[in-house]
Amino acid sequence: MPPTTIFDLPTPSLILDRAKLVRNLRRMADTARRKGVLLRPHLKTAKSIDVARLAIEGQSGGIAVSTLKEAEYFASQGIKDIQYAACIIPDQLTRVADIQRLGSRITLITDSVEVTRAICSMGRELDETFRVQVELDCGEGRSGVFPDSEELIEIARILDEASHATFSGVMTHAGHSYQCRTIAEIEEVAEAERDTAVSAAERIRRHGVACATVSIGSTPTALYARSLDGVTEVRPGVYMFGDMFQAQINSCSVDDLAISVIAEVSSHHAAMNRLLVNAGALALSKDRSTENMPNDIGFGLVTKADGQPFKAPMKVARVYQEHGQIPLFGELSCEQLPVGTRLRIYPNHVCMTAAMYDQYHLVDSEQGDGCEIIAIWPRINGW
Amino acid sequence: MPPTTIFDLPTPSLILDRAKLVRNLRRMADTARRKGVLLRPHLKTAKSIDVARLAIEGQSGGIAVSTLKEAEYFASQGIKDIQYAACIIPDQLTRVADIQRLGSRITLITDSVEVTRAICSMGRELDETFRVQVELDCGEGRSGVFPDSEELIEIARILDEASHATFSGVMTHAGHSYQCRTIAEIEEVAEAERDTAVSAAERIRRHGVACATVSIGSTPTALYARSLDGVTEVRPGVYMFGDMFQAQINSCSVDDLAISVIAEVSSHHAAMNRLLVNAGALALSKDRSTENMPNDIGFGLVTKADGQPFKAPMKVARVYQEHGQIPLFGELSCEQLPVGTRLRIYPNHVCMTAAMYDQYHLVDSEQGDGCEIIAIWPRINGW
Repeated sequence: MPPTTIFDLPTPSLILDRAKLVRNLRRMADTARRKGVLLRPHLKTAKSIDVARLAIEGQSGGIAVSTLKEAEYFASQGIKDIQYAACIIPDQLTRVADIQRLGSRITLITDSVEVTRAICSMGRELDETFRVQVELDCGEGRSGVFPDSEELIEIARILDEASHATFSGVMTHAGHSYQCRTIAEIEEVAEAERDTAVSAAERIRRHGVACATVSIGSTPTALYARSLDGVTEVRPGVYMFGDMFQAQINSCSVDDLAISVIAEVSSHHAAMNRLLVNAGALALSKDRSTENMPNDIGFGLVTKADGQPFKAPMKVARVYQEHGQIPLFGELSCEQLPVGTRLRIYPNHVCMTAAMYDQYHLVDSEQGDGCEIIAIWPRINGW
Repeated sequence: MPPTTIFDLPTPSLILDRAKLVRNLRRMADTARRKGVLLRPHLKTAKSIDVARLAIEGQSGGIAVSTLKEAEYFASQGIKDIQYAACIIPDQLTRVADIQRLGSRITLITDSVEVTRAICSMGRELDETFRVQVELDCGEGRSGVFPDSEELIEIARILDEASHATFSGVMTHAGHSYQCRTIAEIEEVAEAERDTAVSAAERIRRHGVACATVSIGSTPTALYARSLDGVTEVRPGVYMFGDMFQAQINSCSVDDLAISVIAEVSSHHAAMNRLLVNAGALALSKDRSTENMPNDIGFGLVTKADGQPFKAPMKVARVYQEHGQIPLFGELSCEQLPVGTRLRIYPNHVCMTAAMYDQYHLVDSEQGDGCEIIAIWPRINGW
């Protein structure tokens, strides 16, 4: 008999709350519509066709991905417009060509003149046309060319003139918005992101090359940008699920978190008034992104199995490979949480935690007690 | 055409050096033999039947595992003697019974009188006999009863008298040996681990209950214990592969590390003299266990593709979901490492890194140039 509620699931398992997912998707879709840009959901977090279908509902149908395996998977599931949002390495182009031959169009990105030339030459060799955008550095310092650089124009021109490549536009990612601690700071980063992309696109156009797409994206900047004038699309990803880190940088509230891990108490250390659950470094990840935040929740915020909070906040303070250690405070003692008690854990960084599982168990917090498993959605991992 | 060398593998991929694996296995087997104890390899790191078969060669054939999924997998692959080395939660007992009915014997552990009673009662209900050991706390403070506690004797007696459970012995794990920074400190923890286990076993015997197994285990204590008198078996795990953290606590040398990740340069930031590789937080894990060690290697030590070191040591200083950032020092500049250059990355904590992959690509550093793929071994993940 398959599990029917979160109380008979094997533990640890990954729980996805459909009501919260739908609410998060709607909020971003409304934001994009209001700001006059297309929404290209980034599926690096969800890696699930079921989530993708909900996320593109009412949108243009395009998605972004972070790995070629995601591109292959989503193409095999019928997604036709896929931006592979990591700088392409020339020896990956045969895999890209294989995906395109199945009927999906992949948009590549690069920040290198040499790689651009390799794309053009591989396109001729494989008799396949590659669609390419230039990545811009809008202040994060990770990758991308600067908007005022010579490379920007050179890459655009090489692509514009190529027989087996097309220049599709510019893209940038304000990953440094994660460093922001106030909405005012996010607004500032968002404006720098917009300005970088728009000024680069205008410069390219002044050089006589068409620049159709002006793509920006991070969950905080997509939500808080005061203006997206000149931008054509946003590519946020983590907004679908939210996590404890995003809640602390104002991307969502703790009540919006759609992903949690269900675990069970496996041991007590009564002398220390703490317990172990069977969810540790592998089930939660070792991400510590709330470490220097106002509310450091260790490796995850702990609630009752049905998602209701404890009176005194509980967190996973320490992880071992398969165990999480939870200190008890206030009136709570080990006797009240016997071995086998189920708890929900809301992770720091959902992209890391979800990647440890190959499926989502769906609940709906707006239906009944919210503990019934209403569906199982597969997800992919790896490269 | 399948990949034949590390130069045509898709990246990132997980590389396992068979020569180093075999050397590491032999060293631990020799140590156990010399100290007069059985070796029960812990497969929580490797999660591979191919590694398990090499690890139990010439041993008693028993293994330890950290999850029920590992127990199910290894049982399905013909391993008959499996210790599930995490405190059992009663609702997992039906899965345990199912494994046993396929012909493998699972040894359970517990540190709870209540759980012990539940095991006995579930045994009767399922008409299945469960074999159980008591977990001891030898100073780590994670789980386990103290060797002088009343619970120790009570658990042993309940099991000894049960119709559908047997008492098999005591076990402990000196996880705090990972805090040691000198061999003298490891020797001290190892002696506390031995003393805890042996004194608990003797106390149980004085109460008239047979205590066959006295099981201890961690890679550092198994290697450095000055005496294992009274101990019957050791259960180390990470010794098979080694990692940058283990190398710094003297469990191995950097030259023993059998696991690495092969990645490619994907972007340059020439102005900052640093580059990106396509292996980040997911491909390497966010483990930072060398953070407070003498040699903090960030998220991994970087070498040339063939495993040869660079003149100035290189490390992954920062990770993004799919990217690792590597600052260049000394005479190295971006031009010398063009996009597509392959690099090998040796992780901090191999248990975390290996868990991100579903297969090992085997090379043999003692054959030819050590870059040929000689086999692909599957591994499992999840719960």
